[in-house]
Amino acid sequence: MTKQSCLVIGAGDATGGAIAKRFAREGFETCLVRRARHLDQLQDLAAEITAEGGSAHAFGVDAREEDEVTKLFAKIEQDIAPLGVVVFNIGGNVNFPITEMTSRVYRKVWEMSCFAGFLAGREAARYMVPRNSGTIIFTGATASVRGGAGYSAFAGAKHGLRALAQSLARELGPKGIHVAHTIIDGAIDTAFIAERFPDRYATKDHDGILRPAEIAENYWHLHSQQRSAWTFEIDLRPWVENW
Amino acid sequence: MTKQSCLVIGAGDATGGAIAKRFAREGFETCLVRRARHLDQLQDLAAEITAEGGSAHAFGVDAREEDEVTKLFAKIEQDIAPLGVVVFNIGGNVNFPITEMTSRVYRKVWEMSCFAGFLAGREAARYMVPRNSGTIIFTGATASVRGGAGYSAFAGAKHGLRALAQSLARELGPKGIHVAHTIIDGAIDTAFIAERFPDRYATKDHDGILRPAEIAENYWHLHSQQRSAWTFEIDLRPWVENW
Amino acid sequence: MTKQSCLVIGAGDATGGAIAKRFAREGFETCLVRRARHLDQLQDLAAEITAEGGSAHAFGVDAREEDEVTKLFAKIEQDIAPLGVVVFNIGGNVNFPITEMTSRVYRKVWEMSCFAGFLAGREAARYMVPRNSGTIIFTGATASVRGGAGYSAFAGAKHGLRALAQSLARELGPKGIHVAHTIIDGAIDTAFIAERFPDRYATKDHDGILRPAEIAENYWHLHSQQRSAWTFEIDLRPWVENW
Amino acid sequence: MTKQSCLVIGAGDATGGAIAKRFAREGFETCLVRRARHLDQLQDLAAEITAEGGSAHAFGVDAREEDEVTKLFAKIEQDIAPLGVVVFNIGGNVNFPITEMTSRVYRKVWEMSCFAGFLAGREAARYMVPRNSGTIIFTGATASVRGGAGYSAFAGAKHGLRALAQSLARELGPKGIHVAHTIIDGAIDTAFIAERFPDRYATKDHDGILRPAEIAENYWHLHSQQRSAWTFEIDLRPWVENW
Repeated sequence: MTKQSCLVIGAGDATGGAIAKRFAREGFETCLVRRARHLDQLQDLAAEITAEGGSAHAFGVDAREEDEVTKLFAKIEQDIAPLGVVVFNIGGNVNFPITEMTSRVYRKVWEMSCFAGFLAGREAARYMVPRNSGTIIFTGATASVRGGAGYSAFAGAKHGLRALAQSLARELGPKGIHVAHTIIDGAIDTAFIAERFPDRYATKDHDGILRPAEIAENYWHLHSQQRSAWTFEIDLRPWVENW
Repeated sequence: MTKQSCLVIGAGDATGGAIAKRFAREGFETCLVRRARHLDQLQDLAAEITAEGGSAHAFGVDAREEDEVTKLFAKIEQDIAPLGVVVFNIGGNVNFPITEMTSRVYRKVWEMSCFAGFLAGREAARYMVPRNSGTIIFTGATASVRGGAGYSAFAGAKHGLRALAQSLARELGPKGIHVAHTIIDGAIDTAFIAERFPDRYATKDHDGILRPAEIAENYWHLHSQQRSAWTFEIDLRPWVENW
Repeated sequence: MTKQSCLVIGAGDATGGAIAKRFAREGFETCLVRRARHLDQLQDLAAEITAEGGSAHAFGVDAREEDEVTKLFAKIEQDIAPLGVVVFNIGGNVNFPITEMTSRVYRKVWEMSCFAGFLAGREAARYMVPRNSGTIIFTGATASVRGGAGYSAFAGAKHGLRALAQSLARELGPKGIHVAHTIIDGAIDTAFIAERFPDRYATKDHDGILRPAEIAENYWHLHSQQRSAWTFEIDLRPWVENW
Repeated sequence: MTKQSCLVIGAGDATGGAIAKRFAREGFETCLVRRARHLDQLQDLAAEITAEGGSAHAFGVDAREEDEVTKLFAKIEQDIAPLGVVVFNIGGNVNFPITEMTSRVYRKVWEMSCFAGFLAGREAARYMVPRNSGTIIFTGATASVRGGAGYSAFAGAKHGLRALAQSLARELGPKGIHVAHTIIDGAIDTAFIAERFPDRYATKDHDGILRPAEIAENYWHLHSQQRSAWTFEIDLRPWVENW
């Protein structure tokens, strides 16, 4: 295959990193994105991928800023390789009683977890539709299908992202673009879980939390599906999860 | 009962108007809200309600503006009557191919159909929770549960609004606030449908489109439910609808 | 209106009884059905309805037996009054680990909660379609939309019943028959709950369990909906329910 | 790995055959099941698998008969190899107006598509639970999540099967058994589609219908998932599908 790039927006967490590594192993030019102020860590991830024989490029971009996003896509397409895969993986999990939820937080969560997904999906479509080819994957969560108490902002954004993914899948599927949505329904092996939910984290030894590399395996599977049998949505949870 | 107010945000369409009339007939002080530039028509609606023996107050408010919304709620509570019912009824139905969807439109639809709903729900909660009493109803649509092609913005906003409603229902139900969500799954008898979908509109004579007064009847029913048997979600469609 | 009958299949529990009473108050000839061996109690219910000024007829029928069901419908249509409303309200809530679930129980639960519903729905359709009029309501439960651990039989039957209701709603709606499905998501004020879940039952005083009369109110509302705005599905739960 | 068997109940269609071939390629002893009267064709499939270097055993079994099913499982466990994978793949797609649906057909469809799945799932659990290991996959369809007009029987059975799968996933997951459900949402490349829907079949050349081998690839993926990230449900449809 001709060189292709795989863009991971929200590559700063364990999941995004694992996805980038997985596609790098398949020969993709991986393009890693997170906020500019964390560019150092992102360069560490890029170095890790390179050390493993892969190819990685780190970008400090605010994915909520239209100009930055359109420039990012243009730069990748021009300087690196045509986008074969775009993964949108930004979270924004917060929980507040409704009366304590500020409009600033409510809006910010939406901008991070939904609006940025719209910008990414649209820019991906602009490059992929003329080629009738490409894969776009949006990372969802339990909150994508359930509005729990206190989750008005996060569930709102994640529901919106899922609607976006569905809409794009229906519009772009017949144009040759595979759009998929994952529902990650459980705790992931991250520093966040280790610190905040130590009991949960302790189940890691017997796979009680999601391993990022295993999540990534499923993103690779989605991309690998032949077009006669495409999946729109796949849920992922640890075997012991009480759902 | 002591005098209570019923606030309808998005009272400019046939549905909002019918809901206001229905609650006015039950003795509520109805508070009607739409954009200031359409305040004239809203005053006509208020006059109509008054002529039928009801009580109505028209407010020109931009429901996306936090300050305007908090002032509106404060004014109603102080000058009119405690809020017994808040109905959020703003739509924003647009359809564009993803590559033609501007970030301005995508954001505006969300601000109208989802963010404004958050502001309304939060302000309602602030007044209702201390009284452990009240009803909040959010108007949904087919797009609340389905992301059709071209509907990334509208379905995104409506999915987000539904997540908000679910989250509030779970948080506020046990505090005595009845939060409900309607899924209006069909064309409504409005000028919009008459102009844009004349064939559909022609089915009006045999009830092929939703009558606003009948929709309103269901909002009244939701409010009337005794707390041992509350409904979160109700779908409404014409008998002939192909769903 | 001309005299009409309202058939409640599964009138032996508090919910079925309350529904029958509600429709009797509106002037329906209520036809009450449960197994023949409990005909005595059913006649008590009929007497109660009659004492309240209503009209009631008790039938000892095995709703899983096609012959008995077709004869029941024919008898009501010929001897009592045309069927305006049919409510299917038979439950069958059991919970067993899968390895302890016998094929006898699995099949019996399906026959009671699903197959009997098919017989009722089909017979109702046979009489209602030529008149282009009538209401058919199926009682569902949490298990109608969730397959919990141990609930393979009950959830299987309830999911099947919901599929039946959906299929009938789509087929018969355009023929003038209103088909609806309720999701009763919580404990009901019944002897079963009082004995088996006393802690839950103790919440009755502050409406922590569903009141049958309030459930019945919603069945009446569904029947009362004008055809331009019909509901297929409505959920009902106590305000304090943790869902 | 120690030799394991993969049982495919409903191996008579293209999907079941492709699944068996896929697992045979991975070294499983494949056990193929369909009605005894079609045992000849099943032996052809077994011969094909053997010719490709795989291992296959054909069984003429009525999957609705408890005795036959328990004997089948016992025989495989004793004579062939421990069951690592059980796939339940029996269909039963029929469509009749409700008034023309006989109780015989309604029951038969349930027995084939749901009750037989219960028997298979339960027997699989009996052998797999003590080993805390194994995969059970149930094949679903559009009708698993939608009750279309005329589909009361098929959607009822498929909804019931999905409830079974969910219930088993929740009960058996924490015991180490991976239970999954597929939603095949489109026409498959089969003789049935070729004959009945020739226009649809003509889209085969550009992958407008599902290729059985690609479906099978996804069953293999589900089985391959590491237990920290298991999927319960995956949908599969052709890229051009209008859903």
